[in-house]
Amino acid sequence: MADMTDSPLTRDGKSIVLAHDHGLEHGPTAFSAVPDRLNPEKVFEMATHDAVTAFAVQKGLAKQYYPSYEDSVNLLAKCNGSSSLRSGEPFSPQTWSVDHADDLGADAIGYTVYPGTNTEHEMFKDFYKVQEAAEDHDLPVAMWSYPRGQPIKEHRNPDAIAYATRIGLELGADFVKVKYPRSGAAMGHAVDAAGPCNVLLSGGSKSDDLTFLSMVETAIDAGASGLAVGRNVWQHEDPMSLLDALEKVVFEEQTAADALGREAIEHGSTA
Amino acid sequence: MADMTDSPLTRDGKSIVLAHDHGLEHGPTAFSAVPDRLNPEKVFEMATHDAVTAFAVQKGLAKQYYPSYEDSVNLLAKCNGSSSLRSGEPFSPQTWSVDHADDLGADAIGYTVYPGTNTEHEMFKDFYKVQEAAEDHDLPVAMWSYPRGQPIKEHRNPDAIAYATRIGLELGADFVKVKYPRSGAAMGHAVDAAGPCNVLLSGGSKSDDLTFLSMVETAIDAGASGLAVGRNVWQHEDPMSLLDALEKVVFEEQTAADALGREAIEHGSTA
Amino acid sequence: MADMTDSPLTRDGKSIVLAHDHGLEHGPTAFSAVPDRLNPEKVFEMATHDAVTAFAVQKGLAKQYYPSYEDSVNLLAKCNGSSSLRSGEPFSPQTWSVDHADDLGADAIGYTVYPGTNTEHEMFKDFYKVQEAAEDHDLPVAMWSYPRGQPIKEHRNPDAIAYATRIGLELGADFVKVKYPRSGAAMGHAVDAAGPCNVLLSGGSKSDDLTFLSMVETAIDAGASGLAVGRNVWQHEDPMSLLDALEKVVFEEQTAADALGREAIEHGSTA
Amino acid sequence: MADMTDSPLTRDGKSIVLAHDHGLEHGPTAFSAVPDRLNPEKVFEMATHDAVTAFAVQKGLAKQYYPSYEDSVNLLAKCNGSSSLRSGEPFSPQTWSVDHADDLGADAIGYTVYPGTNTEHEMFKDFYKVQEAAEDHDLPVAMWSYPRGQPIKEHRNPDAIAYATRIGLELGADFVKVKYPRSGAAMGHAVDAAGPCNVLLSGGSKSDDLTFLSMVETAIDAGASGLAVGRNVWQHEDPMSLLDALEKVVFEEQTAADALGREAIEHGSTA
Amino acid sequence: MADMTDSPLTRDGKSIVLAHDHGLEHGPTAFSAVPDRLNPEKVFEMATHDAVTAFAVQKGLAKQYYPSYEDSVNLLAKCNGSSSLRSGEPFSPQTWSVDHADDLGADAIGYTVYPGTNTEHEMFKDFYKVQEAAEDHDLPVAMWSYPRGQPIKEHRNPDAIAYATRIGLELGADFVKVKYPRSGAAMGHAVDAAGPCNVLLSGGSKSDDLTFLSMVETAIDAGASGLAVGRNVWQHEDPMSLLDALEKVVFEEQTAADALGREAIEHGSTA
Repeated sequence: MADMTDSPLTRDGKSIVLAHDHGLEHGPTAFSAVPDRLNPEKVFEMATHDAVTAFAVQKGLAKQYYPSYEDSVNLLAKCNGSSSLRSGEPFSPQTWSVDHADDLGADAIGYTVYPGTNTEHEMFKDFYKVQEAAEDHDLPVAMWSYPRGQPIKEHRNPDAIAYATRIGLELGADFVKVKYPRSGAAMGHAVDAAGPCNVLLSGGSKSDDLTFLSMVETAIDAGASGLAVGRNVWQHEDPMSLLDALEKVVFEEQTAADALGREAIEHGSTA
Repeated sequence: MADMTDSPLTRDGKSIVLAHDHGLEHGPTAFSAVPDRLNPEKVFEMATHDAVTAFAVQKGLAKQYYPSYEDSVNLLAKCNGSSSLRSGEPFSPQTWSVDHADDLGADAIGYTVYPGTNTEHEMFKDFYKVQEAAEDHDLPVAMWSYPRGQPIKEHRNPDAIAYATRIGLELGADFVKVKYPRSGAAMGHAVDAAGPCNVLLSGGSKSDDLTFLSMVETAIDAGASGLAVGRNVWQHEDPMSLLDALEKVVFEEQTAADALGREAIEHGSTA
Repeated sequence: MADMTDSPLTRDGKSIVLAHDHGLEHGPTAFSAVPDRLNPEKVFEMATHDAVTAFAVQKGLAKQYYPSYEDSVNLLAKCNGSSSLRSGEPFSPQTWSVDHADDLGADAIGYTVYPGTNTEHEMFKDFYKVQEAAEDHDLPVAMWSYPRGQPIKEHRNPDAIAYATRIGLELGADFVKVKYPRSGAAMGHAVDAAGPCNVLLSGGSKSDDLTFLSMVETAIDAGASGLAVGRNVWQHEDPMSLLDALEKVVFEEQTAADALGREAIEHGSTA
Repeated sequence: MADMTDSPLTRDGKSIVLAHDHGLEHGPTAFSAVPDRLNPEKVFEMATHDAVTAFAVQKGLAKQYYPSYEDSVNLLAKCNGSSSLRSGEPFSPQTWSVDHADDLGADAIGYTVYPGTNTEHEMFKDFYKVQEAAEDHDLPVAMWSYPRGQPIKEHRNPDAIAYATRIGLELGADFVKVKYPRSGAAMGHAVDAAGPCNVLLSGGSKSDDLTFLSMVETAIDAGASGLAVGRNVWQHEDPMSLLDALEKVVFEEQTAADALGREAIEHGSTA
Repeated sequence: MADMTDSPLTRDGKSIVLAHDHGLEHGPTAFSAVPDRLNPEKVFEMATHDAVTAFAVQKGLAKQYYPSYEDSVNLLAKCNGSSSLRSGEPFSPQTWSVDHADDLGADAIGYTVYPGTNTEHEMFKDFYKVQEAAEDHDLPVAMWSYPRGQPIKEHRNPDAIAYATRIGLELGADFVKVKYPRSGAAMGHAVDAAGPCNVLLSGGSKSDDLTFLSMVETAIDAGASGLAVGRNVWQHEDPMSLLDALEKVVFEEQTAADALGREAIEHGSTA
């Protein structure tokens, strides 16, 4: 069993990946409430927070900024992506070779697959080549595993999420990032399905701090190795304080309420 | 004629392949009745049973667990696969290169084709490259040969199964795994059609022990070299005892009833 | 002009290719009247007959049996093929690389194209790479040239067959195998259209001996270099006697009737 | 952050790219009002004007004329393109390898993508290979980033243009060329979205001098690094005088009116 | 500017390419009025006429006959082609690699593109690889540039033909072969649009000598570098005399009437 404890993506077996590929996936409208964060430097600065074990960006951001941050930030090279301008079933083409990511100092590789779509087979095929190239460079691989397509009625349903984490394990990913399956029990099942493959909770769209941190706390309690968080951090009015709180929940086993210095909420309300 | 007698997949010319790619092909719901087997280690342990000549898994399971089992288990690297989340005609993309499978210590290569589908030609083309790469690495190849597609009215009909085994022979497979064509005579015909290519019965979904073992006995009597069994073993309440019985039927030429210490059933009832 | 007189496929400029790729193209039902021939060894034995200048099989049959026959049989490696389980327009994907065929001792390469189909361009492209690889290995190439597709009303019409042989010449084949265009005059025209590319009559489905041999005699008289025969030989009750007769017609310029020791039939009746 | 200040495409951080790929993209009808410019030599002469930092052409024009101009013109090799004869969604296939462009003395690489189309993924994939090949040759890359496709209601709307520049940044372009988003504020937002990736205004179809130069002035004021201009120059009755004026606006920070020695117009009227 | 004056395809800057790929493109029915010409040797003999600067054939004809003619004929290797058996939009797949054409002694490469079709982008992509391979072998490239597809109402209209020649120039062809755009003025415009890329008139289907030669005379007067002629020569009852006349019109600047020893016809009647 590969030991990811010493991986650049983990600390004591836990991970907080700050993800910032939204400029490609969602476009600049994602920044309308926090216009200063349109400047990637602001988000690179957030990635220097102690809590962050790796920073996930596309090639262009890495190329432009990572040389200034390579001592303070671990780079998770997100090697495929697509824009939201396109309609139809999701498909994420490769945008970065593992060779070039490695040249730039990447510590790990990230790749999205959409199981259940009509082009699942193309993404599985693309993934295996990227995963093997990463293996040849001794780089761990994180799969963004998002079931989609007509047959999937509801992409957060527990069975779909457990299938998603299992696909990560079966296809050789070291980390697998999935949406929250709506309960700690479902998350626990998804973690079991992944075996030794580390499960990362996908932060999703911006919600209030306690709701978000309670979801993280529940996921960690259920066995998740951590999370990949994007908008909940960089769309936050005070990103560093939220990262402080995340650090407490993920690495120090505090409750969400304690980490925020507030009263707890019911798990049932984390949708 | 290639002599597979000394192949790591056979013992005295017979094989019991334990297959465990269901996490990818069927998803975690396949484990709902036996939740502890969601842990691949439990199934790897079953593969150490003397009866098992090879264990068929996807890249990820092999990568995570095989290093601990390489002395006790022969690895059949299943190099393509797909999820059941996708609808439409089946197609199984490559998920593992022969090079990387060999690096991990694979003893043989497994690959699925679906003759009769609209993408039969793509799978034949993918198969020939994998088969030749395996040949270059001196690794035998097992084809999962499953006729599908609109023109095939019933995928277990004897003519379809005999065609399936012949395709294995014609395209250069050393082993060909097919569904049970509903009678020993039909199985015998399929074995004849395969020439020296070893025919493996596909265990299929879980059935009661005597029904299952009687089907195996019939297939062996008809000339099959053995079977690839998955759910009938790892979904079993006592997998090791079923493997004991399988060993008796396949390697010691006992009847199913004798192997189980029970009364025989009629062959006609093995559907 | 390439001189194929000394080619392993010809003797005194004439060829009798025994073709046996029916296990893939037609499936085991092709053997229902002659079940013992389901065993490829029986057909390999026929290929040792003096009349046979080359034996055309897929990779798997060659791999399993050719090592025992390499001193007595010339191997024509059929490097693409498809099953009849698939419906829709015919397309024949590559199933064997020229490199691997050469490693196994192939004396020539065979490849099917279906001019007129929607994927004609893919087969032309695949063919050119195979043809050039064969040239690099000093192996002659035989094209199975079978016009198909919606615009072709009748695939045995004389213009279609003459076009088929010309495509063989134009694309660089050394031999071109076509269906019988229903008359000696039409065959003569097809031979003229092929220039120095050797035209082989495709034997087609089983017919009575005199009808079949008269068709061969007519084709030879019209300038064909010989034939590729499959079912008329290996589905025959006495294959060796038919090969004796074929030898007389093709190599010794006897009439079909003389070769069979019978009375001639009218050419007009060879449909 | 890559410093493009010393790039052959910039002078003091500013660029005027003269683009002349209209012979391929629009065809000779683009020259009907200025028939002498159908001769590429006339346009190459314009490219020798001091104002021009690089000249963007397809392979053929570069091959035929660039050897005579390599001392006086910087070459931006436009490595993909398509004709306007084709209907349907735009797609721009590769027409020139980076290797061959480099052999001919290219100083930079240009490549078009159409985000939002059904083949966005193919262009992203093609782009990443071209961008990495350019990086391997130490050549900067300019992306022509033009959102298109059914979901995009209006391809000059400010959000689409800001998304377009961000895609340039995210995918690793050094320069990104976009249409004018109808106001300086929108251009400023697009420039912000691009981070350190230089934004070039796309000159678009021919308009009157003051309107055109006012748009350029507004874009430069908004932070654009310059422009890529084609028809406004080479369809002009006096191209050299317009280049004089462009030089003043882009490099000498003059107003459009001053540069032309005329009265200013309202920005609101630059459509 | 590449100087094609010394190219094997030109003499004093002029070319008469004898084209003979009709066996593939049109099939043997093209020979029905001149059955002896079905023998490629007869047409190879025509190619030895002094007037002919190059002979354009597919791989197979070159392979079979060129070794006997390499001292007397310049070979233009036509490296793609398709049959007229297929319906639907035209697409011409590669049939010959530049490497193999060069091995056989090719003096130049010919390649067809159909701008305006739905697969224009595939042909542009294929063309660029062939063009660059030819450049690497120091072989000039002739593009057959034939606008087609739904949006093109009439494929001989002057704008389409001028676009066709410009595409030749833009994509790096040394020669571009187009249909006659119905007038000398239109031809002159097409020649201007091609810049230094040599324009070759496509002879088209068989017409009477004076009509044909007058069209050639007009094209030459309009600046065409020559023509590629097929059926007007090899379907002619006296091909050598027509080549005599062509030589006078193309290389000796005689009128069509003078070359034939007849009275001139009005240009307006050359349709």
